[in-house]
Amino acid sequence: MNIKQLIEKNRTYRRFDEKHSISVEQLTELIDLARLSATAANRQPLKYMLITRPDECARMYPFLAWAGYLTTWEGPNPGERPAAYIVILGDKEISDKFGFDPGIAAQSIMLGATEAGLGGCIFASVKREALRHEFSIPDQYDILLVLALGEPIEQVVIETIKENDVKYWRDNQAVHHVPKRTLEEIIIHK
Amino acid sequence: MNIKQLIEKNRTYRRFDEKHSISVEQLTELIDLARLSATAANRQPLKYMLITRPDECARMYPFLAWAGYLTTWEGPNPGERPAAYIVILGDKEISDKFGFDPGIAAQSIMLGATEAGLGGCIFASVKREALRHEFSIPDQYDILLVLALGEPIEQVVIETIKENDVKYWRDNQAVHHVPKRTLEEIIIHK
Repeated sequence: MNIKQLIEKNRTYRRFDEKHSISVEQLTELIDLARLSATAANRQPLKYMLITRPDECARMYPFLAWAGYLTTWEGPNPGERPAAYIVILGDKEISDKFGFDPGIAAQSIMLGATEAGLGGCIFASVKREALRHEFSIPDQYDILLVLALGEPIEQVVIETIKENDVKYWRDNQAVHHVPKRTLEEIIIHK
Repeated sequence: MNIKQLIEKNRTYRRFDEKHSISVEQLTELIDLARLSATAANRQPLKYMLITRPDECARMYPFLAWAGYLTTWEGPNPGERPAAYIVILGDKEISDKFGFDPGIAAQSIMLGATEAGLGGCIFASVKREALRHEFSIPDQYDILLVLALGEPIEQVVIETIKENDVKYWRDNQAVHHVPKRTLEEIIIHK
């Protein structure tokens, strides 16, 4: 796959085959991609907490806000939930700001996951203090992002945006449709 | 190239063959990668300003802070400067915050550039108001990041970090060395 194909395949997925487990070794390979990615002033302030055991995944699940626009859907059913999570932390002993580093790292990880046949969802909407308490995350770390990962079992289709409506929707075949702005709209001409 | 090879090749480059020009069409293909990348709540608030003409590149150059740790180096000499820039803007008519979107978009663009034989540098340290004035960027847009692009002419080598010193350095062969933290350091064990 070239990068265009990889990015096209790297959709946000929210339903998975939960029986398809993901190992710590697989996640570590993904973290290596983030490790080698750009970071402001080469500070490398990001740390990563890996969650792969089913009991830990069950403890993580309630802290995430799923698919805001699907107002009648409360999130994936048991059996279709993520099989692993990566919590991206900012180490305040290294830096007091994390800027654009978490987005860069998250994209590297999600592209690596996609290449490996996995998929998932980047969560910025997280119940951070409850998560901190549940997993005893020290105050030294800011909780920046949670990446949910699994083997996707849903189809996601890119649509052209209409009437500036960015809300994704699910059709009656459970296919997920995501409207995207056109190149003409997003390139500013001087 | 698989994603690991692509990310290893995607170093931060600061010296280029300025004669190697980059077309608006090439940049547009890179923007398409960002267009198809994840964005919070699918809002897609990012816009992109493309700079490819030599006179425009010359006007952009002074607004960027080059290689903070190389205290005796003022930036690339004429002839070794970027051949194009992408300014990532946040459209405040769409959203009042841009979160992790710019980092995700920047990484997609830089990986696409790397695959195309280009390379560059992500600048968060930008003289934003001077840049806004020079290119008459409307107040509707926050200036988030500037990506500098060109055909790299320098060698960049990844090193293992020693004594927690993140400062990159250039050796007497002008090879650029970048110390990276180990996997053991960045993975937090619960």
